Amino acid sequence: MRELPENEAEIAAAIISLERKALDRWGKGDPSGFLEISAPDVVYFDPFVECRVDGIEELTRLYERYRGQVKLAGYELLNPNVQWIGDAAVLTFNFFSRDDDGTESRWNCTEVYRRGSEGWRIVQTHWALTQAGRSKAGLRRSF
Amino acid sequence: MRELPENEAEIAAAIISLERKALDRWGKGDPSGFLEISAPDVVYFDPFVECRVDGIEELTRLYERYRGQVKLAGYELLNPNVQWIGDAAVLTFNFFSRDDDGTESRWNCTEVYRRGSEGWRIVQTHWALTQAGRSKAGLRRSF
Repeated sequence: MRELPENEAEIAAAIISLERKALDRWGKGDPSGFLEISAPDVVYFDPFVECRVDGIEELTRLYERYRGQVKLAGYELLNPNVQWIGDAAVLTFNFFSRDDDGTESRWNCTEVYRRGSEGWRIVQTHWALTQAGRSKAGLRRSF
Repeated sequence: MRELPENEAEIAAAIISLERKALDRWGKGDPSGFLEISAPDVVYFDPFVECRVDGIEELTRLYERYRGQVKLAGYELLNPNVQWIGDAAVLTFNFFSRDDDGTESRWNCTEVYRRGSEGWRIVQTHWALTQAGRSKAGLRRSF
């Protein structure tokens, strides 16, 4: 572990910068930006998988299926928040994306980063579609 | 911070136990189990909110709207995984629930717990509907 001076604002800026760099590549169809900063024991959810994806090998297989498929004309990383807990940092944000065909999507995202000898690495990714439950009548019933 | 002996298995068991106790109350329409173990700076996503919910006061207002609405006939906490990072613990699982009217739902869940003087408290909750994206043709296109 490094022992450099640090504070919450610096850590938040570093984490958000890592995320934006990976998102920029993601938006051009390149998932390697995320793979390069994901830990061996990363766990992952998105709205398309049947159950949690466990480990970098399984995540790599999934991301290779996504490679070249995502083409974002633009995105907004909205209201990012970083909760710093020692060698863990929890980044949460809402996300707006526009595909190159004009399709717009809104997302909820949680990334958990862990600091080790290589720097900050993602150990947990959770993407979901904002208000996806509103489209399911049976689930709206209760709320 | 306590300095008691600890190991990953003990911490995982403690975290999962906390979650199950809160879920048991949640399934009876009582959100207070979660509120009592959530930190002041908790952040929260579910498939019904328009954007991230920030802080225990905002979360309390939301949960009070859910109070008495959830009646689970049963649930399964599937394949829980705990990643321990010092005073942080990242619990992820898939979740199956059956309402008292027989409606079945499948969920992805991430809970981040932080250890402080009061014990482990939730600082981040993210609930999403498993494969919610499959129902959105415009989003299936890409994957």
